[in-house]
Amino acid sequence: MSTIKVPATSANLGPGYDTLGLALSLYNDFDIKKRKDQQLKITIIDQNKNKEIKIARKDNLVALAYQKYFDFIAEDLIGAEITEKMHTPLARGLGSSSSAIIGGLAAAAIVSGKLISKTDFIQLAVDLEKHPDNVVPALVGGLTINFYCKNNYDYYKIDIEQELDFILVVPDFELKTEKLRQVLPEVVDYPSAINNLSRVSLLTAAFINREYHLLKTAMEDQLHQPYRKKLIKGFDQVLAAAYESGAYGAALSGAGPTILACTQKKSDQIAQNMKKVFASNAVKTDIFKVKACNQSLYQNLKEEIS
Amino acid sequence: MSTIKVPATSANLGPGYDTLGLALSLYNDFDIKKRKDQQLKITIIDQNKNKEIKIARKDNLVALAYQKYFDFIAEDLIGAEITEKMHTPLARGLGSSSSAIIGGLAAAAIVSGKLISKTDFIQLAVDLEKHPDNVVPALVGGLTINFYCKNNYDYYKIDIEQELDFILVVPDFELKTEKLRQVLPEVVDYPSAINNLSRVSLLTAAFINREYHLLKTAMEDQLHQPYRKKLIKGFDQVLAAAYESGAYGAALSGAGPTILACTQKKSDQIAQNMKKVFASNAVKTDIFKVKACNQSLYQNLKEEIS
Repeated sequence: MSTIKVPATSANLGPGYDTLGLALSLYNDFDIKKRKDQQLKITIIDQNKNKEIKIARKDNLVALAYQKYFDFIAEDLIGAEITEKMHTPLARGLGSSSSAIIGGLAAAAIVSGKLISKTDFIQLAVDLEKHPDNVVPALVGGLTINFYCKNNYDYYKIDIEQELDFILVVPDFELKTEKLRQVLPEVVDYPSAINNLSRVSLLTAAFINREYHLLKTAMEDQLHQPYRKKLIKGFDQVLAAAYESGAYGAALSGAGPTILACTQKKSDQIAQNMKKVFASNAVKTDIFKVKACNQSLYQNLKEEIS
Repeated sequence: MSTIKVPATSANLGPGYDTLGLALSLYNDFDIKKRKDQQLKITIIDQNKNKEIKIARKDNLVALAYQKYFDFIAEDLIGAEITEKMHTPLARGLGSSSSAIIGGLAAAAIVSGKLISKTDFIQLAVDLEKHPDNVVPALVGGLTINFYCKNNYDYYKIDIEQELDFILVVPDFELKTEKLRQVLPEVVDYPSAINNLSRVSLLTAAFINREYHLLKTAMEDQLHQPYRKKLIKGFDQVLAAAYESGAYGAALSGAGPTILACTQKKSDQIAQNMKKVFASNAVKTDIFKVKACNQSLYQNLKEEIS
């Protein structure tokens, strides 16, 4: 049996709409056992609630990705038993579907014994997920700048120091990305675009040069957060609480509803204060305190398979 | 007599529309002599053509900036003779008007003996120029990420290594920024905004981490270059020639018509090939080969005045 760990991911990160993604030290574990027949048996267990999640086969991203991988390498599917032990909350803006896709593709790589190129691996994943900013960091780790170039998705990886704590405050309701895309306007005005251009450039410099005091300004977004936060009761107050408690930066994780805050100290206090403000808005939350995950799952696969 | 040197600047730099600005080692020199009366006498000499440029007082940015500085410090204007020796071509996308503004403000600081804070200096300059991405690098040097925050313009400076050559290919016709703003659409679609977000982030990483091979992808713009290049005959061919000759990156400088290319080697050959393609489109050009200017004029003023 093989086990792989796929990290949760936080996309957008303030101004980096559909561009930035960060891998986090919160993992979904995939136990993979080869079968002798062509059956694919997938079990998904929510480790936080300790219960199995039933997903129809046609919606099961692990299965779809597994099948797609075999289609790509043009070989007959080899059966497997895959158990996904989910630590990442579902549909909360932490890349749970990307995790399922990367897990399914990686399982197929292991079972087939054939690892496709990283470029191909990324294109397969983006085909399934439609956006690169969760699947890419889930596959390669770190903070990735994702860009489309010459008909392929490519990325640049920035390792994020372990001195930073990332606090994830996860409301107990789901927001589906598809619905969240519908609340966005059709176009952007130049001042909003310029706001985000300047801030995503600043955010990049802040993380590379470890000048975290810049993050508060650098995380201000005008392309998606102003629209999506309306679906999250108490959002502005929670962000204010994070900053008042000493966070460097705070923003929606992905499309929400999770709010991510970043700090080097007082992380418990920041988390509790954010939780309290959500509670006063009648929103129950779970808290995760994590680090960046800089390890590359693709590199691990390479070592395991070759 | 005092002399100050104000660098030419290249704004936008590909995807960094209204955001990035780079100071270059091509200077306008300002000779400043205090007068005993309240007369302000300004002479502007085009050093490239070796002749005086006559500008009506109401349009003379050196004079306007000089007056504005005295208004700001709430003191009576002290007369001066200022001679601007221009090496930067006028109205070609190299920040000549920003240079005049910074020169006028700096002259007033020297003559008054009172240096206002850097934040105030920047706001005065942006008030006159309307945009920060030329005046800020002209004042502080380097590559600046310019952003608006809490009712002020602020910046983050990245020093650019002297190993890089910047080639400026300057067509012999003027494009006024005001007109160039009119060719832009009123709004931006999300895919174009995302293209620039990813590339401005990549460009920032490329310069900080000195990974110049990324610049070709990083300099692709969808917010202004596609519209403005239509006013520059042969633009796409010139860019292609730059890349074919080995440039790392090439883009409009500011709003054009100058094209900037960046390289570590073969700069003469790149420049000649770009010039040739322009010539085959019946466009005469001047070539400047420069480095980044990382020195801060504001710091120099501080040392001179305090």
